Parts: sequence; structure tokens; C-alpha cells
Amino acid sequence: MNYSLLSLIRAQEPLVHNITNYVVMNSTANALLALGASPVMAHAVEEVGEMVRLSRALVINIGTLSPAWVDAMSAAAREAAAHGIPIVLDPVGCGATAYRTRTARDLLAAAHPAVIRGNASEIRSLAGSSGGTKGVDSLHGPEDVLDDAVALSRLLGCVVSVSGPTDIVVAGDRVARIRNGDPMMTRVTGMGCTASAVTGAFLAVAADAFDAGVQAMVAMGVAGELAAVAAAGPGSFQVRFIDALHGLREADLRQHARLDCTP
Amino acid sequence: MNYSLLSLIRAQEPLVHNITNYVVMNSTANALLALGASPVMAHAVEEVGEMVRLSRALVINIGTLSPAWVDAMSAAAREAAAHGIPIVLDPVGCGATAYRTRTARDLLAAAHPAVIRGNASEIRSLAGSSGGTKGVDSLHGPEDVLDDAVALSRLLGCVVSVSGPTDIVVAGDRVARIRNGDPMMTRVTGMGCTASAVTGAFLAVAADAFDAGVQAMVAMGVAGELAAVAAAGPGSFQVRFIDALHGLREADLRQHARLDCTP
Amino acid sequence: MNYSLLSLIRAQEPLVHNITNYVVMNSTANALLALGASPVMAHAVEEVGEMVRLSRALVINIGTLSPAWVDAMSAAAREAAAHGIPIVLDPVGCGATAYRTRTARDLLAAAHPAVIRGNASEIRSLAGSSGGTKGVDSLHGPEDVLDDAVALSRLLGCVVSVSGPTDIVVAGDRVARIRNGDPMMTRVTGMGCTASAVTGAFLAVAADAFDAGVQAMVAMGVAGELAAVAAAGPGSFQVRFIDALHGLREADLRQHARLDCTP
Repeated sequence: MNYSLLSLIRAQEPLVHNITNYVVMNSTANALLALGASPVMAHAVEEVGEMVRLSRALVINIGTLSPAWVDAMSAAAREAAAHGIPIVLDPVGCGATAYRTRTARDLLAAAHPAVIRGNASEIRSLAGSSGGTKGVDSLHGPEDVLDDAVALSRLLGCVVSVSGPTDIVVAGDRVARIRNGDPMMTRVTGMGCTASAVTGAFLAVAADAFDAGVQAMVAMGVAGELAAVAAAGPGSFQVRFIDALHGLREADLRQHARLDCTP
Repeated sequence: MNYSLLSLIRAQEPLVHNITNYVVMNSTANALLALGASPVMAHAVEEVGEMVRLSRALVINIGTLSPAWVDAMSAAAREAAAHGIPIVLDPVGCGATAYRTRTARDLLAAAHPAVIRGNASEIRSLAGSSGGTKGVDSLHGPEDVLDDAVALSRLLGCVVSVSGPTDIVVAGDRVARIRNGDPMMTRVTGMGCTASAVTGAFLAVAADAFDAGVQAMVAMGVAGELAAVAAAGPGSFQVRFIDALHGLREADLRQHARLDCTP
Repeated sequence: MNYSLLSLIRAQEPLVHNITNYVVMNSTANALLALGASPVMAHAVEEVGEMVRLSRALVINIGTLSPAWVDAMSAAAREAAAHGIPIVLDPVGCGATAYRTRTARDLLAAAHPAVIRGNASEIRSLAGSSGGTKGVDSLHGPEDVLDDAVALSRLLGCVVSVSGPTDIVVAGDRVARIRNGDPMMTRVTGMGCTASAVTGAFLAVAADAFDAGVQAMVAMGVAGELAAVAAAGPGSFQVRFIDALHGLREADLRQHARLDCTP
């Protein structure tokens, strides 16, 4: 992996359109800016089509969904698909309620995402396996979910990115395992949502969605490790994480990545 | 007071369902995570019932209310009541506009909260006393409000928790005064909303709502004092407050609590 | 410029009513509190009129607009106009989509703002010039926009405040150029929205909207410079910026302002 996408993000400052949840809008916009991308948040059906066409990637996140927002997500997804703009879908809480599960599946039917990014419970639920979700947090480790991720990736022909102590990124037969990150990342709200937004930034400049998915998770994990070094708790961790994303260099990724790819 | 609830939160990581305002969703989710609880935010009527049933406490906060959200709050409150899940109601800005006052009262009619948590103006308004509210900030000190808090507690058979320079927690004849905290807490938005969410976390693991209300306000106040020590302003205070919640030990509460309980 | 408004904000703690976007609600509320003002966020048509009448300024920001919110913005603006409460309009992303451009113009028709505050693309779009907007970020420098700002100011009889590497504040023939600030401010989401909210606080205590617009931008820029001194990135910059607003003294403004006024 040559980690060349980070420089492209800084050079191109791609506009990334986010239709995401209320909890993380500020923190994901700041993560995108720190990384070097240009975020926009817009959710009215009156404008999402136009905003998508200005953008290089669309990130859909159902964390605080409601019918009007889901309509806008569907409209934006169809417009993105029609114009070849890659989509990241984060099915937050899929499996926790019937409404979330149904919405995630409806969004998959509306338009084909380039990357589905979630935690193990969400991916298992989306793949149709049995298993429980505790609210929006995961009960499953990522290795448990590998079969489901592979099945989902093959069925939909997209990349599936699963976060956990070990992150897994799958594209059909290709599997990457990323052992970066820090436990402090689980004590900050919306780090998974940030991973989805960051995946959108990498996808915006990438020729290959698997490379984008992998490099995004390596960047998240390495930034998390750098941030954790001197953090006194999750408050100072958040501040240092944004600073780390801003200061991140491709040399950091090469030096710190703990990545295994097969085949 | 033996301050045993904090350890239970860390051990049980209770899911706390918040239907709260846009301003504080991120900061209250982070406060709950720092404390050791597991937050979820969901507000669509299509799913609030199901999400409530997965949760150990429901926190309703009307800070940025609108009719669709109030409908969801009512539905969630009824479902919580039907399943014995304790409710915290934060009547933000009650008394500032007729719509807020009416909504707060309607929510009380929809379902019985275990704890009502607000500032002095809000509690006075909810109790029906005359008095003014300056937007969402309080014009009254907490001692002025004691009679109203006692009356409201007796009328509804619930705990009433009033924040101010001295916090007051009332359950019928029982009154606790908590003289912790720091003036910097008034220069950060949503510290009252955070107190309500934190009260929800304590309530989720408590046998007694009065104990939960008291220990939550002691935890808020002590964390605020620890955060203020080296804060250069409200920006660094916020960061240190989250770190302090994360690092808080029951020994800190025993050592720093300035608590008077009667009888 | 005698920079006397900052002391008035601290003395009067004016209530500033914000109908703004989801991304920045928390950060702008915190900026207003740090500065010494009292923020309130309320957007339901059921209450915006009443809330406006309690307030000393109204800030309308269309960053994440949708029809229900636009209705509330119009209602609030009319109520503010009827009661002599000054309005700041931030036409976020005007020119990026037809819906934003149309909404910004409709809001101008609903009620006369005291200050229009935006970036160069937004002001050019509002003035009817050709030009592009890249999402919500500006493609134009502020000097390019001077003619448009002057034309818009004369046409509407209001102050026009344009942020950029050099900020420009125009009131008819009066033009102020402010060369404060730091590039780090462009890597934090919502700094323009914060400038609009801060302008609202200055407007709430000012006899003259031009003075308010100028002193607000000087305060933003000087706080940004003070914050940037020891910031390791945009995460620590945000924290220090809030601390700097809180600690800001009129002596800091006099000492650090790089302000040219004509005539």
C-alpha cells in the first residue's frame, strides 16, 4: 500500500457531501477539514440533488434518521449514482430497530454504495444474519463478522469496511486487516461516523474503493494512536485527534500502519 | 451517601436513550461516554418505542422542541412508563414561551418522570409560580425555588433536581443541597442538559431516584471543580470536564462532595 | 474606533436568538457565552415570535435549511422587524444551489437585516453577480467583492460584512478593511457562522450597525490570532479560540487591530 491518497486529498480538497446525524455533524465536518477535504452538509430534498452534483463523494449516515431525512438520502443517493459520484453508506444502529434495518436496506436498493462502513453488529444485521445490536454500539468483534462482510461485498459488489479492535476491509476476495487505533476511540461519540466521512474523502480522490477504504481506516487508526499518546481522557483525546488528522503525513501511515492484506 | 452508583455505571454501561436538543447532542453523548454509560440518540416516532425498550433510562430535553419531536417525546415517555424505564425530564426554557410551558406540562401528563431536572426559573414555571425566564437561563437562585421544588415533588411523587450555585435535590420531605461546581460551568452551553443526561445514567443503575439525582449532581460539581483547576477559559474547561468525568473515582466524590441532606 | 462594545456585552449579557444550522449550534452558542452574551436557539414557528421579543438581536443562518426552518426564519424576521430588534443574516452557501439563493432573497424580502454577513461568493451571489460557490466555501477573495458589497449595502440600506483573508465591512460609502485573523480559522467548521453570531452580540449593544460589524470582525480576528499562537492544529485552535474570546479585553482589540476605515 503506497498511501498516496492523503496527498491527493490535500492537493484537491474534494467537496464531500454529508447527510448525517445531528450528533456528529460538527465533529465530522471538523475531521474532514483537518484532513484537508471540504465538507458540506445539506439535507433538504429541495437541494440535495444539486449539492451532490457539486461534490466528489456522498456520505449517508442514518444515525438520527427520520422520514424526511431518509427521503433526502434516497434522492441524493440516486443523483449520485446517476452522475458516478461514489457513495459511502453508514447504517448506524442497523439491527437495533426495525426502522433502521428497513431504511438501511431501502437505501441499498435506491443506489449502490461504493463502500458500506459500519461496526460488526450493523454489518451482520445488514447481511441478514441473526445477532443483536446494543443501541448503536457493537456486540460483535470484527473477526466474527468476516463471513458476513465477504458475503455482503460479493452480493452487492461493493467494499465493506468494519470497524473494531481490528478493522476489516473487504472487496470480494480481497481482505485487509488493520490493527491500528486506541481504546480511547470507543469513549468518543461518533468516531465510527468520522471514519465514514474520512472514507468519503479518500474515496473522492481514489481510483479504487478498496484502497480508499483501507487507507481511510489506517489514517483513522494512526491518528488515534498519535492522539492517545498524551491524552488525559476522551476530552483531550478529541482535540489531539483533530490535530493529528491535520498533521498526518504519508510517512506516518507507512511507519505506523499495522496492515495485513490477503491475497 | 456512599457514592456507589458510579462504579455500577462503569460496570453495567447502561444504554441511556436521549431525545434532546440539537445544541447539546454531541456534548451530552460525550459526557455519557466519558462517565462510562452508553448513549443513544433517536427521535423518529417510527422507532422511539423500540429504542426505549432497549434502554435503561430515557432523558427528554425540550431545548429545541418542535411538534414532531414533541410527539416522539410523548410516545417514548409512554413506552418507558409502560415498561418501568425511568424518565428524566429537562423542561429547558419552560416559562420563556407559552409553547415550552405547555409542552413541559403535556409531557408530565403523558408519563410520570422519575426526576425533573431544571434551573430555578424552569422549576418555578413548571410549578405554576409567577416568575420570569430569560431565554433558557435562570433569573432565580435555587433557594428561592425550594418551596416550588418541594410542592412539585409532592404533587407528582417524583424527584426534583434544581441546578444553581447551590444545587437542590428534593424528594418529598428529603432535601439535599450540593455546594459543588464552578462558575465556569455557566459559560459553557448545555451544562444543565449534561446534568440531565448524567442524571439519566445514575438513574439507570440506581434503586432510588433521590440517590441517583444527588450523586449525579455531586459528580457534575466535583468534575467541574477538577476541570476548573487549570482551565484557561471555557474552551479548555470543556475539554478538562470530559477528562474529569472519565477519570472520576468514587473516592473523589467522597473527598470533595459538599453535601447536606435533610432530614 | 474606541472598541467600547465588548464591555457593553459583558455588562448587559444580551440575549441573542439564533436560528442557525445544525453543524454549528454548539460552537456558536459556546462562542457567544465565552464572549459574555447569552445565546438562545429556538426554531419552532409555535414560539419563535415570543422568543424574538425576549431577545436583543436575531441571527438567521441558512446553513442547513429546510422549508419548516425557513418558515420559522421568516416569521422570526418579521417579528424582529416589527419590534425594532436588529437582524443578522448569514446566507450560507447562497449561490451553491437555487434553493439557497432563492431562500436568501426571500428572507431579505421578509425583513430588512441590519447586517448581512457572508463570504465573498455568498455576497456576490446575493448581489446578483455571476460567480461560483464551492459548496459553502468561497472561491473569491474579499477585494473582488467590494463593488458588490457596496451595491448591496446601498440597495438595502444595511451593513454588509464579508469575511476573507481581509475582512471588509461596508455601510454605504463607509468601508472598513480588517487584516486580522489566522489561516487556521479556515480549517475549523463554522468560523463564518461564529462571526455572524458574534456580530449579533455586538449589534445587540450597539447604537450603530457599522461599528458593531467592524468590532465583531476585529474581535474574531484578534481572538483567532491569540488562539493560533500555541495551537498544534485545528483541534487545539478551537479550544484556544473559545478561551481567547472569553479572555478578550478592549486593550487587546486596540493593540492588535489592523483596521483601515474610509472615509
